[in-house]
Amino acid sequence: MNAAYDRLKARFARIGALNEAAGILHWDASAMMPPGGGHARGEQLAALAGVSHELLTAPQVAEDLAAATADGEWDGANLALMRRAHARATALPVALVEASSRANSACEMVWREAKADADFGKVRKALTEVVALQREIAQALGAALGMDPYDALMDGYQPGVTAADVEPVFAAYESWLAEALPRAEAIQAQRPAPLPLEGRFPVAAQRALCREMAERVGLQFSHARLDESLHPFCGGNPSDVRITTFYDEHNPAKALLGVLHETGHAMYERHLPAGFARQPVGEAAGMAAHESQSLIVEMQACRSDAFLGFLAGRLRQEFGLSTRIACRENLARLWRRVGRGFIRVDADEITYPAHVILRFRLERAMIGGTLAVADLPQAWNEGLRALLGIVPPDDAQGCLQDIHWHDGAFGYFPSYTLGAMAAAQLMAAIRGDMPELDAQLAKGDLSAMMRWLNLRVHGQGARLGFQDLLRAATGRPLDPGDFTAHLTRRYLDG
Amino acid sequence: MNAAYDRLKARFARIGALNEAAGILHWDASAMMPPGGGHARGEQLAALAGVSHELLTAPQVAEDLAAATADGEWDGANLALMRRAHARATALPVALVEASSRANSACEMVWREAKADADFGKVRKALTEVVALQREIAQALGAALGMDPYDALMDGYQPGVTAADVEPVFAAYESWLAEALPRAEAIQAQRPAPLPLEGRFPVAAQRALCREMAERVGLQFSHARLDESLHPFCGGNPSDVRITTFYDEHNPAKALLGVLHETGHAMYERHLPAGFARQPVGEAAGMAAHESQSLIVEMQACRSDAFLGFLAGRLRQEFGLSTRIACRENLARLWRRVGRGFIRVDADEITYPAHVILRFRLERAMIGGTLAVADLPQAWNEGLRALLGIVPPDDAQGCLQDIHWHDGAFGYFPSYTLGAMAAAQLMAAIRGDMPELDAQLAKGDLSAMMRWLNLRVHGQGARLGFQDLLRAATGRPLDPGDFTAHLTRRYLDG
Repeated sequence: MNAAYDRLKARFARIGALNEAAGILHWDASAMMPPGGGHARGEQLAALAGVSHELLTAPQVAEDLAAATADGEWDGANLALMRRAHARATALPVALVEASSRANSACEMVWREAKADADFGKVRKALTEVVALQREIAQALGAALGMDPYDALMDGYQPGVTAADVEPVFAAYESWLAEALPRAEAIQAQRPAPLPLEGRFPVAAQRALCREMAERVGLQFSHARLDESLHPFCGGNPSDVRITTFYDEHNPAKALLGVLHETGHAMYERHLPAGFARQPVGEAAGMAAHESQSLIVEMQACRSDAFLGFLAGRLRQEFGLSTRIACRENLARLWRRVGRGFIRVDADEITYPAHVILRFRLERAMIGGTLAVADLPQAWNEGLRALLGIVPPDDAQGCLQDIHWHDGAFGYFPSYTLGAMAAAQLMAAIRGDMPELDAQLAKGDLSAMMRWLNLRVHGQGARLGFQDLLRAATGRPLDPGDFTAHLTRRYLDG
Repeated sequence: MNAAYDRLKARFARIGALNEAAGILHWDASAMMPPGGGHARGEQLAALAGVSHELLTAPQVAEDLAAATADGEWDGANLALMRRAHARATALPVALVEASSRANSACEMVWREAKADADFGKVRKALTEVVALQREIAQALGAALGMDPYDALMDGYQPGVTAADVEPVFAAYESWLAEALPRAEAIQAQRPAPLPLEGRFPVAAQRALCREMAERVGLQFSHARLDESLHPFCGGNPSDVRITTFYDEHNPAKALLGVLHETGHAMYERHLPAGFARQPVGEAAGMAAHESQSLIVEMQACRSDAFLGFLAGRLRQEFGLSTRIACRENLARLWRRVGRGFIRVDADEITYPAHVILRFRLERAMIGGTLAVADLPQAWNEGLRALLGIVPPDDAQGCLQDIHWHDGAFGYFPSYTLGAMAAAQLMAAIRGDMPELDAQLAKGDLSAMMRWLNLRVHGQGARLGFQDLLRAATGRPLDPGDFTAHLTRRYLDG
């Protein structure tokens, strides 16, 4: 450790604090802000982003990075992450960043209209511009980081995972799915149809139950909030995490399962290493790692038979539902229903990766220059047919459904499925260490499981890359076998 | 207008946006933040303040200010305010600012304990340190701005008003009060005692009525929020103002009158000149000007006989109160009750200035070096006896009651009474222009009155100083005669 490293730590602490400020302002814009505040909020966030970027790219940073030394695993990793952040921030000419930002905003606006009208032609030109600029960005980042261009985009969301890592994993899943999905459907068809949760579920009672569930997972509301927004998310900062949900008076499942998902994210943030707060190594290890934590809570723990049995009891108590409807078996049929659909965000656990695989291949081809934006609708439809055997009736239910590309986010989609796979792998390790897990889940008790994750995942911050994090926690790098084994147990051992 | 001025405008726009961000974070800390978020919030606000200060004091600013020219009243005033902001920001050595900030924080903490224990001895040392540093600050600012040291502190809250302006106004009020207060008390004693608003007033119903009242004043909730906090305030920014209140289920008056007060502040912010948003000239004209807008709504308009009659009807409708209790006459007796008390924030309209006069004289003497902190309790008690004829039973009800000095705020207190006087003067001008005002207020309609203020006060931003603002709006600089005439009509023409 030397003076240059200390200066860098002070500078990154300041950048981290400004980013935290922006995080609260983003949360506020979604959960609190009156509509008329939007323009000023844009100015506030732009000023914060501009100042952050200037602090990160100031000439002094390059000098300090050249001179800095850091001792030990944590500070060594912190310094390496500082170098990476600086390399990414300085790789792009300001004019390219601004052109891309403008193109993204313009495309996003046109996309809303194109989606509403199911008319890809309306967004084609704007998306072509977005993709052209993303290709420039990918090439510039790739050159600066010594990576393939598409990998350089992925690296912005989940450092340390490349397309070459993902490709065989996804290919294997595609093969598995081709055989497994029809079997899962056949098994499901032989079982009774699920009975819907009928009735009115007052928002106040849903909110109280959601808070209780978040607390059962381990969230302390002395350091957290639960509010409402159109699109649920987890924001804020580690000592002040803010999750949101959306209540439907006719269906409590959306809010309940959504809150459990966001609580998984929130627990990661809450238990990041406080000694490195607002330092790069004190952040989460990436989007796939983050998604693993939301999914291990929502999908692995809380949709398990054991927890569903507990939750059924709570639903009976709170809403007076019958045992026929609010029982483990019916909740499992309702909330673990398999089906081939067009919409990614509505997909079940088995088919969700197919939606991701489709997008991974298409976006990689667009960034690689082998797929023109004009050919996207056809490629989408052919890809979905190959993966799931269905073709969307229009582009609104096809290549227009997600905001991501139209907002300039390329390289993000794989994180969803890497996260699902990592969640299964971590859960397998937890079950190995804790044979009593199901007995705990049946009592609504996730405390021991969360302590395991606090220690082996959350508390590691960004010290380890995605693969090393999994290796340290489970003894192996990403092994999708645990995910298919989990799906087999849940959907095929019927 | 030249390139140097354009660069300054861009820089101040950025500073303004960062200050807006800080404003939302301050609001959030009071109205939303879970307690555990406090430490990180401190880091976020410190980073924002640090970056703002660096942007304002960068060498380029002095160069640009030396070269800048601006045409027209608005840009000319904007440039002058930029010079003032730069002069204030560069007048103080960083070490002094930091020492003062630390001393203020330390003193504020000790003060809470000292106040709870009514033990001035506990805070004497810390407050002595605060005052010593404030004296240094006042001297440095005074030297940079060419002002008397105490005036330089006042200038930080209400530019353009000096102690020499205030002194004769306050002396005249003291004389008027000595004669008027006993008369007002005698008149009040001959009237029936007020009947309290008894019963339970559910928070939801109070909130709805408070929102309605804010809307009647003219606040649009597409650009505003109303929330709860321990200490009510108005925050946010002009396109997104955020007022808070505190509901007492046993007394709706606090929230109602408090919301009307904060709405007056909010209307000022909402109608600042949008073309100069985030520029110095686009801000309010100072704290006294701001207080004039809260008080013209709360005290002048909404405690008028005409509006109280309207409000009485709404209270009967919403809470089923009897005509005996919820009538104009009884509300006037309840909410315009005169009395000699120890506590400033509980004081009535007539005695409130006495509390301010006391503080003005004492703080001026402390900054001038003619009153030692150790002698403050005695000077306080003697001063209050001279002004109101009462002596507090202990220092908790005396010199320990306000946070201001213990947090390093010297020069702020006069703004309260300057605001009250300006409110009366503006209201006299409005009544002169609008003979139909009482008929409108009797229907709960403040729209014409607010349009008058939008045009002549709010929309002027900080283009004019406090005195020139009053001159342009009313034809005269501050004339306390309108305030005493108002008090005479309300309390002495019985």
